[in-house]
Amino acid sequence: MISEASFIDLALRSWKANVDRAGTFFSALSQEELQREVAPGKNRLIYLWGHLAAINDRMVAILGFGERLHPELDAMFVLNSDKTVHLTVSAKELKHIWDEINEAVWMGFCKLSPSEWLEKHTAVSNDDFIREPHRNRFAVLLGRTAHLAYHFGQAVLAKQES
Amino acid sequence: MISEASFIDLALRSWKANVDRAGTFFSALSQEELQREVAPGKNRLIYLWGHLAAINDRMVAILGFGERLHPELDAMFVLNSDKTVHLTVSAKELKHIWDEINEAVWMGFCKLSPSEWLEKHTAVSNDDFIREPHRNRFAVLLGRTAHLAYHFGQAVLAKQES
Repeated sequence: MISEASFIDLALRSWKANVDRAGTFFSALSQEELQREVAPGKNRLIYLWGHLAAINDRMVAILGFGERLHPELDAMFVLNSDKTVHLTVSAKELKHIWDEINEAVWMGFCKLSPSEWLEKHTAVSNDDFIREPHRNRFAVLLGRTAHLAYHFGQAVLAKQES
Repeated sequence: MISEASFIDLALRSWKANVDRAGTFFSALSQEELQREVAPGKNRLIYLWGHLAAINDRMVAILGFGERLHPELDAMFVLNSDKTVHLTVSAKELKHIWDEINEAVWMGFCKLSPSEWLEKHTAVSNDDFIREPHRNRFAVLLGRTAHLAYHFGQAVLAKQES
């Protein structure tokens, strides 16, 4: 009963738990609450939510699932700092985009075989991958799960008492 | 070339990257800097460092590697909120404890076979494990990696400009 699939399943559970936790948190916030900074002078909640959505959307391309769905997010939430660019997306739209992106990523995950999980992702060159075979799809999954947790830890500071 | 070991190796790399990142960050802080709160009224940096050390120390017992090394950390950094208990550990001591704990955890990790990674951890009963076989050592590794990232994301708010 031991197989690669068990380890992949556990990593997917961890991913999903972190996506769901963030989605539940951000979706429950009002438009006003989303304007709060996580600490004085730091990113606003809406920026963190958009940032996580954009980085998850990039996975669609990085993992070779197809073209990403919302490249327009990058200018607002990745390439520029918070409060330097006008946001053209509402909280309601972001909720829809969040669900759409994470469903696309999840569908891609579910189609991968164990050997495909260990293949290189598209942001690594063939030469680099020969030297660094750990730069594969599974590493992207683990790295992005930690990325979600990193920013979620920041987000809860704006909402909770401790 | 595909094996369970590849997936375990990738998860261990992710763990180590997160431990090293946190260790480098906290170790570089002065005693005064460690007194900073991550946001107004929130945990101080020294509390987060001690908390991460304590939770990692608990893994020694939870993963069945032996008795944990520093149970005295719990009263200061887990069971009670920050600023409610006098801290009897200095920054220098915490640095030593941090390294000691993470070395013990790492040595335990390196001795586990793939099948042992999928065995239940000691905080789950036999009955629960039959119903929920995903509550195994590998799940603890992934969960604690996310826990490190969650609090590290908070810690950097007290230090950096963005």
